[in-house]
Amino acid sequence: MLLNAIKTKQLNDRRMKLLITGINGFVAQHFLRFLTLNDKSFTILGISRSKQMIDPDSFPELNLTIQQADLLDKSKVGEIIKNFRPDFLLHLASVSSVGHSWLQPLESFVNNTNIFLNLVEQLRIENIPCRILSIGSSEEYGIVTTDDIPITEKCKLNPISPYAVARVSQEMISEIYHKGYGMDIVMTRSFNHIGPGQKDVFVISSFAKQLAKIYLFPDLEKKVVVGDNSIIRDFIDVRDVVKAYYLLLKNGVSGEIYNICSGNGISIKDVLEKMRKLIGIEITIEENKKLFRKNDNPVIIGNADKIKNSLKWAPNIDIDQSLTDIIDWWKIQLKTI
Amino acid sequence: MLLNAIKTKQLNDRRMKLLITGINGFVAQHFLRFLTLNDKSFTILGISRSKQMIDPDSFPELNLTIQQADLLDKSKVGEIIKNFRPDFLLHLASVSSVGHSWLQPLESFVNNTNIFLNLVEQLRIENIPCRILSIGSSEEYGIVTTDDIPITEKCKLNPISPYAVARVSQEMISEIYHKGYGMDIVMTRSFNHIGPGQKDVFVISSFAKQLAKIYLFPDLEKKVVVGDNSIIRDFIDVRDVVKAYYLLLKNGVSGEIYNICSGNGISIKDVLEKMRKLIGIEITIEENKKLFRKNDNPVIIGNADKIKNSLKWAPNIDIDQSLTDIIDWWKIQLKTI
Repeated sequence: MLLNAIKTKQLNDRRMKLLITGINGFVAQHFLRFLTLNDKSFTILGISRSKQMIDPDSFPELNLTIQQADLLDKSKVGEIIKNFRPDFLLHLASVSSVGHSWLQPLESFVNNTNIFLNLVEQLRIENIPCRILSIGSSEEYGIVTTDDIPITEKCKLNPISPYAVARVSQEMISEIYHKGYGMDIVMTRSFNHIGPGQKDVFVISSFAKQLAKIYLFPDLEKKVVVGDNSIIRDFIDVRDVVKAYYLLLKNGVSGEIYNICSGNGISIKDVLEKMRKLIGIEITIEENKKLFRKNDNPVIIGNADKIKNSLKWAPNIDIDQSLTDIIDWWKIQLKTI
Repeated sequence: MLLNAIKTKQLNDRRMKLLITGINGFVAQHFLRFLTLNDKSFTILGISRSKQMIDPDSFPELNLTIQQADLLDKSKVGEIIKNFRPDFLLHLASVSSVGHSWLQPLESFVNNTNIFLNLVEQLRIENIPCRILSIGSSEEYGIVTTDDIPITEKCKLNPISPYAVARVSQEMISEIYHKGYGMDIVMTRSFNHIGPGQKDVFVISSFAKQLAKIYLFPDLEKKVVVGDNSIIRDFIDVRDVVKAYYLLLKNGVSGEIYNICSGNGISIKDVLEKMRKLIGIEITIEENKKLFRKNDNPVIIGNADKIKNSLKWAPNIDIDQSLTDIIDWWKIQLKTI
């Protein structure tokens, strides 16, 4: 409460400083769009590992600076934290593909868990009263029983991929830094995001790209390659996700974990059929066993009552709208190649 | 099973190669003594981060080589694994003090979790059929309810210190590498070890040192400084621990987790009184609140039925014997200063 009082006072005096990691990523882009529309009050420092970075001028209404840094570099992280002294940290940097984590488990672990640990440790050492949003994943739940569906935050964690292990480790670190050092950390378990701009290593974006190609180039074979399309997921539009992140940064309860999900489950197969109808083409579907993951979760559907009840958040964009926007986005990308 | 068959064949052909990390440490010293008495068949490579290393000639009956390496250095780990190609890995390297982990949480995490990850990842990349013993800790259980005592391996993990979080992360990584990549990993949750040679950052060793000093130097103030001495722990002699490690390396079931404990709980206060009586002096006890840990577990007592039943292991050294040996060890150390 003292911390909030200090922040409220500061808010009257100066602009709040927001540090966003993973600024080049899919979620960060949508978060910046959300701020452009809803809250231009922050001084924002965006960090990206990649040297090819977004142009801050694409968000002319925001007070945004971009810096290149590898968050595994402790001294660089120290420098950023000491110089910028953030009031808020939105930690979006992540290697978030489950499939990739099986190929590069060490890279996945360090670029989720260790980069987060480097950030919170520097904030602790510098004693900076920063509200941190630690992003977790529905993958943390792993294999759940039918009784656990829809999954609430109380469900036992049972991670079954390197990526999921990295996210559970990050969450345990968050809890220790909150309980042990009194740091102001809010945690999420975010379910599968979809939306325009997502990389095609993620299933829905991959389908949309393949369908848009078939639509635009009629000479191509009308075939879509899929992995295990029986699995059921809870897809949520990234624009609803970033609204939740904003509300959690502002009003989430410190030390608490929040599911961010739609509450609806749909099989990969049914999503593909929805998209096919939306784009209006006929296709054949080819299963590629190589795309099947080890130990995949058959069903993940979340329960978002906690964030709905405490922060008056609710998803606004239904799956048909999301899919339409994703297909349209790919049509534009493919036309301009 | 195939792996075991291959190993059995190799066993007939050549000496098995055993990689031991943390070779300078308390547990490794006792493990080497155990091998000297019981099994001299291994070619052993010992790794230590410290440049001041044990002399292999202190174990003249073993085929032991020592090498200095920081296990956080991935390329160095790669080199060691590629060159030595171990059949067995006993991973003892650890920054294992809970108290220290609150002071240096990042150091504690990387020097438990990341060093382990670097080792198993290199073994995976090189496709080496190595039996790995991943050492965990009773601290992983965290705060448990009275109903959970004595704690079995099925008890929910609830880590409440940075050290405990690092150990749970290591265990999750072990499970993923076993289930996802088929690697041959056996895991322990080892309870508080005691024994001659332990550093005095650990409570029993610290008491023994203070008592031995008072005994040897009658002019000193007869005062022992303690932290929260009401907490109850399951102490097990390190010589019983290393016997369990040997049996687990040889015959533990891959993918399984084993408690290593005495099954008996005793308060810190009662241990101190036992030691005072053994050494035969009067003392005053001073509580130092600075030595109280954040969120300490009030009671930890383990259940060792799993390892007892499956490997015919049982602790042989009772606590009075352990304490006598520890006091005697300190008397010798202090006399020779």
